Amino acid sequence: MQTSAGQTAGVGRPKVSSRQLIEDAAAELFIENTYVGTTIDQITTRAGVSRATFFNYFGAKSDLLWFEVDRANDSLRAACAAASATGSLESIRDVILELAAGFDERRVPLALTQTEVMGAADEIVQSGLVRIATQASVFADFLSARGARHRDDLLVRTAANALAGAVAAAWITWARDGIGRSPLEGYVAESVDVIFPGIRAAFESVARGNTF
Amino acid sequence: MQTSAGQTAGVGRPKVSSRQLIEDAAAELFIENTYVGTTIDQITTRAGVSRATFFNYFGAKSDLLWFEVDRANDSLRAACAAASATGSLESIRDVILELAAGFDERRVPLALTQTEVMGAADEIVQSGLVRIATQASVFADFLSARGARHRDDLLVRTAANALAGAVAAAWITWARDGIGRSPLEGYVAESVDVIFPGIRAAFESVARGNTF
Repeated sequence: MQTSAGQTAGVGRPKVSSRQLIEDAAAELFIENTYVGTTIDQITTRAGVSRATFFNYFGAKSDLLWFEVDRANDSLRAACAAASATGSLESIRDVILELAAGFDERRVPLALTQTEVMGAADEIVQSGLVRIATQASVFADFLSARGARHRDDLLVRTAANALAGAVAAAWITWARDGIGRSPLEGYVAESVDVIFPGIRAAFESVARGNTF
Repeated sequence: MQTSAGQTAGVGRPKVSSRQLIEDAAAELFIENTYVGTTIDQITTRAGVSRATFFNYFGAKSDLLWFEVDRANDSLRAACAAASATGSLESIRDVILELAAGFDERRVPLALTQTEVMGAADEIVQSGLVRIATQASVFADFLSARGARHRDDLLVRTAANALAGAVAAAWITWARDGIGRSPLEGYVAESVDVIFPGIRAAFESVARGNTF
């Protein structure tokens, strides 16, 4: 018997959620049979859940390549929205580094480490690029509020794209460095700090009334 | 009768190439019927070419959204390869600005200006992101040769992604600024110069033997 909180009644370890079961089943099957060679039905069968449950959590098979990144982007969006109310430009850097520091390092996205055995390189690349674009859009929302510029302005778009590209570079390099790698936060700090001083200077210049 | 150079024999204007006919037909049909509502057969019929001819030039319908960008990326790859033999890090900036200065401003990619009437926003975004990634890959090849680092190194990847993101920001902002916009080169220079000084400083630091 279960409580409504999803815990097994009485003592014992927390119940594994359906979502987690689906993620774990997909990860196993992608490694065993490649991404292309795995169907949604195989995933739901191994996870012991219905197709309806699958589509409660995921919109497409490719979402299972990126769930760790999608969760990180959800956290990023929430943190940016919170920082946006009161934050300075600098707070975007803080938010990015805090997110990296809080990332569960045991759950590296499969798509970043197992590309060779997954098959479907094009689909993996495309679905990954969409996540980078999502992150750029979150940054653009935050940055446009800093300078009261429209989010499509050139400086906002440049800074958002460059930051998203830098963060992606850090995640990819970190994932591929393999077992024994140092923490993600260090990679992200190195990458972001190549470009962040230039972004800060450009926003400060605009704030002083210079045209960009 | 035609010469092998594709010119109509004798006097007269140059023959329009099959490739150009396909591009023009696609542009008309995408505006008339949206991107989704246009088939390859409709494009070849209007262009007066065979399906085989279509697939000589284009791999997919989405390639017709981006042919101006694909040509620019081909030019970029050639210019980067030429600069790579003797160039300094700075020459990547020169190559980027020369490409923007040489871009035919009468041929703005439809995908950047007509998104609303084209339909298929997701497919347009995804196929556009692939072009940005292609450009990042060209930059990574050039940059890895500058510092004799593997192209996947964090600094190379950061700089390549940030540059590609900045250039994309410039192109998109320029395209959307509409009729009467100033030349593309100015947009690209403003965007690239937000981040390029940081990239230069990081490469110089590495060259002085500092760890990155």
